[in-house]
Amino acid sequence: MKTLGKHLLCELTGCSSAKLSGVEGVKKEIYAAAAAANATILHGYFHQFAPTGVSGMLCLAESHISIHTWPETGYAAVDIYTCGDKAMPHNAIEYLAQALEAEQHHVLEMSRGVHDDGGRYVSVPVEKIHAAIADDDSLAEVIQRPLKPRAKTKYKAVPVD
Amino acid sequence: MKTLGKHLLCELTGCSSAKLSGVEGVKKEIYAAAAAANATILHGYFHQFAPTGVSGMLCLAESHISIHTWPETGYAAVDIYTCGDKAMPHNAIEYLAQALEAEQHHVLEMSRGVHDDGGRYVSVPVEKIHAAIADDDSLAEVIQRPLKPRAKTKYKAVPVD
Repeated sequence: MKTLGKHLLCELTGCSSAKLSGVEGVKKEIYAAAAAANATILHGYFHQFAPTGVSGMLCLAESHISIHTWPETGYAAVDIYTCGDKAMPHNAIEYLAQALEAEQHHVLEMSRGVHDDGGRYVSVPVEKIHAAIADDDSLAEVIQRPLKPRAKTKYKAVPVD
Repeated sequence: MKTLGKHLLCELTGCSSAKLSGVEGVKKEIYAAAAAANATILHGYFHQFAPTGVSGMLCLAESHISIHTWPETGYAAVDIYTCGDKAMPHNAIEYLAQALEAEQHHVLEMSRGVHDDGGRYVSVPVEKIHAAIADDDSLAEVIQRPLKPRAKTKYKAVPVD
């Protein structure tokens, strides 16, 4: 596992109510999404709410995927958090948007475990990191080179706010 | 469950390596954190990585909590996503920061399932919503009044970017 992780927060709008309603259907699609992301599944759990709605999560070798559905409004909240280079979390989102028949989807990509100027780890929208890199090329290695947990001196401070 | 959820992304810095290393210890503290948040636990799963590190997650009636630890750098990434008024997710973070002996912690609170001007659901940092409310008092009900999933017409658009 790498310390710098990607955490995608995804809102799916206008999904098929039928696709969001039943625990077995949602479970099948989340497992398929994990496969689309090339992730390694350690464990899964899915819960059927009454009268409707499903919550589910997979613990991954790379971190996790979760989904919470509101069939009555066609809304699903998904998050996928991955560490390392192997997983392709955006593929999971693209898969789910199609499989759940979303009319629209919104993805916010957060970088987790980024060192700020004060030595704290923080979470930062990746767009802010890209903006920082645009201002200072020396920061590019922060997201281009995977960071090793044990190599603490390789962390570079990323200015946030 | 309410459609508008709170999702706290929390980075813990300078934690006790011993506290982050073992699956049993991490599991105990996450269960205690869920209790501190007044959350209802549906299921839990925790995984011990080799040589070190733990991933764990609880599926909650209110949504979920997850943790991923890197004992070698004293870093833990936590997220807690809750819907409804009953849960107090910030209490879980305060509890964990103390229990894992974090020197510092950083919390980003995201609002999930917010309607934007185009009718999409999006996720928005809560600070942006507060800024929008400061500009327009009529938006206050967006976060002050819990939204009912079936009452679609009660959603108000929040300007984002």
